[in-house]
Amino acid sequence: MGGICLDKQWIMDAISNFAKIGMGQQGVTRLAFSEEERDAKEYAADLMRQAGLNVHVDAVGNVFGRLEGTDHRGKVVMTGSHVDTPPNGGKFDGVVGVVAGLAAIEELKSRGPLTYPVELVVFSAEESSRFGYATLGSKVMTGRAKLAAWNRIKDESGISLVEAFRKLGYSFDDIRDSIRSSEEIKAFVELHIEGGPYLERTKHNIGIVETIAAPTRLRIVVEGNAAHSGSTPMDERQDALVSAAMIVLAVQEIGMKHMHQGIVGTVGLFKVYPNAMNVVPGRVEMGVDIRGTDHASIVDTLQDIKDAISTIADGQETPVSIEVMVSEMPVEMDERIVSTIEGVCKRLHVSSMRMHSRAGHDAMNMAKMVPSGLIFIPCHEGISHNIEEYADVADIYNGAKVLAETLYELAK
Amino acid sequence: MGGICLDKQWIMDAISNFAKIGMGQQGVTRLAFSEEERDAKEYAADLMRQAGLNVHVDAVGNVFGRLEGTDHRGKVVMTGSHVDTPPNGGKFDGVVGVVAGLAAIEELKSRGPLTYPVELVVFSAEESSRFGYATLGSKVMTGRAKLAAWNRIKDESGISLVEAFRKLGYSFDDIRDSIRSSEEIKAFVELHIEGGPYLERTKHNIGIVETIAAPTRLRIVVEGNAAHSGSTPMDERQDALVSAAMIVLAVQEIGMKHMHQGIVGTVGLFKVYPNAMNVVPGRVEMGVDIRGTDHASIVDTLQDIKDAISTIADGQETPVSIEVMVSEMPVEMDERIVSTIEGVCKRLHVSSMRMHSRAGHDAMNMAKMVPSGLIFIPCHEGISHNIEEYADVADIYNGAKVLAETLYELAK
Repeated sequence: MGGICLDKQWIMDAISNFAKIGMGQQGVTRLAFSEEERDAKEYAADLMRQAGLNVHVDAVGNVFGRLEGTDHRGKVVMTGSHVDTPPNGGKFDGVVGVVAGLAAIEELKSRGPLTYPVELVVFSAEESSRFGYATLGSKVMTGRAKLAAWNRIKDESGISLVEAFRKLGYSFDDIRDSIRSSEEIKAFVELHIEGGPYLERTKHNIGIVETIAAPTRLRIVVEGNAAHSGSTPMDERQDALVSAAMIVLAVQEIGMKHMHQGIVGTVGLFKVYPNAMNVVPGRVEMGVDIRGTDHASIVDTLQDIKDAISTIADGQETPVSIEVMVSEMPVEMDERIVSTIEGVCKRLHVSSMRMHSRAGHDAMNMAKMVPSGLIFIPCHEGISHNIEEYADVADIYNGAKVLAETLYELAK
Repeated sequence: MGGICLDKQWIMDAISNFAKIGMGQQGVTRLAFSEEERDAKEYAADLMRQAGLNVHVDAVGNVFGRLEGTDHRGKVVMTGSHVDTPPNGGKFDGVVGVVAGLAAIEELKSRGPLTYPVELVVFSAEESSRFGYATLGSKVMTGRAKLAAWNRIKDESGISLVEAFRKLGYSFDDIRDSIRSSEEIKAFVELHIEGGPYLERTKHNIGIVETIAAPTRLRIVVEGNAAHSGSTPMDERQDALVSAAMIVLAVQEIGMKHMHQGIVGTVGLFKVYPNAMNVVPGRVEMGVDIRGTDHASIVDTLQDIKDAISTIADGQETPVSIEVMVSEMPVEMDERIVSTIEGVCKRLHVSSMRMHSRAGHDAMNMAKMVPSGLIFIPCHEGISHNIEEYADVADIYNGAKVLAETLYELAK
């Protein structure tokens, strides 16, 4: 099986096999804790077994494939990513980190025994699309699960997280068995598509992440007054959609204003009630996602949004409630691992740049527990979470080489 | 049974019995061609039978209760309304016209035989909430059904109009059997809540409608580019929701601008795709409802909206398609019937005003076939299509008296 390592054809085949799971006309859909995600994790487990790794699945479905080191008690050097997607996502987000991780481990195997064990992990449920919370698998593994909150959450169709767990044979009660400590893990390195346009635009092969932006997530509810769309005069309406539209534009404007500080702000979730042609909307529920790499500018942005909403709510006479669902601090990657990756790139004559990640990744949780690194490869026009998402096999191949050398440096 | 006529207690009981059908915590829901609407029509048929009327149901579920006249070949004087509601609607919209109609017929019965037959009709599917088309029952009866289009339409849950018909035992194929001609109908008079604030505000008991506003309905689709909400920079997005929010505000502003011409404009339907917390929206579908009583100002409003959308689409680089789903001409009520109602109000010492209706009603279709009238009674704060919808029993009682006298004038 040594032949699979750094073999472009194998990489392309593996990626296209993953893509078959959950592929529809509008993109790939493997939601968190869905059957499609489970099938993709089972395919990953098959590939791990084919590579001779010892496979283990924990209580939340995180899959581990282990290559033993000569020091059996040695701390684990870990790599990996996820295989779930948002609705109608792409083929590369998450999957490249699993495929490149496996290729890298094959490369390491071909070099003979390392001192430290190396593990490839496929984390469950990285995307927040289904349950509103991101990186569930790595949160559980690093002891950061918020069980009280998770016990209550449901998806759009009313299926609770607890039920989704149970359907797949996982158990919410055993969730703590999945926790692993810093005592047993030496380092973590994830490879991922950038999901942004900078590497392609600046013609770099590798991005070395220094900071991962923190998501702040708001649930906003606008209360108007449902009324007949024909007989209610324009100047006597409390149209929740009109107020909500103003909030969407305010979030956009405030995001633009703070853009130079690395802020992005998005209204991605938006539901109108009763949503009928002949009724003035009485209620709108929105989800706002704010990201930044600098805590102070996130706080400023949040305050600007709250101020704007307060003005809109008063002016329109439509009460607005704001609930902060998630508010995380930006996370720094480990400087020694960043330098190691940088050194590897130089040695391999692969062009690299240091950068920030505005998207969250499992490496964010891992970095709070053990020294961690995050390697980006370019993706076409920065498109991700979309059927158009595309990463060139040459870039994945480069990434796998850099990952292999980095793991080698950490585990040798 | 003569006792039920113009008996306030009977009116209140009948209205509260209708309200029990489809009542939920947020309001009354009896959607077009739902089981709840059918149950309400069956209750109406029971009341008709109790009143000694001959009951007949046509191929689309319109229910007729007939009081014979001395001239068996005489043209029918018809009254009635509907019993369907939008999602979470109120207890009075539609139902008062049926209840007052029945009370009026009881009053006529107590006066001895009339020359012309009188019929009470309960039209199917007046509200557009479920299938996007309004006044289906009266359109069919007046030969205005658009069968080719109706054959294709589905509700939110994917149930086609044809399927909904079939479930209730109606047949799409027999729809033409429901058509009635102007040869057999002399006049139509509907009683309805105003659904607007003017009667209450000006302290009039009765509104006599001269013109019913025509609805123009647009389906607007904004195409953006679904993208990762973290890694896509603010200035590189084609956020369909941002463009859609601009369109919502443009419709509001243009509606306000043309308000003095009696125009209202509403975005009531609004759906965002993929509707996920971590994805910049890639597509928004909207339904816009424009109403006016003057054709020229409707045309102006529509042009203003199209111009605004074109500017937004270009500026945001998000293509927008506009489809005109419905475009109807304002409908005039029959001046002789308007005068008759006015005369009745004077005689009964009930204060009345001539006015326009911005909401559509079954009388709109009837007026295209036979001389028709529309009587409004006040409703609290003009609220309708909402659980808060309320009409005082004294106003319904007044309306029933005016209706009875008007039918008497027409059928005597």
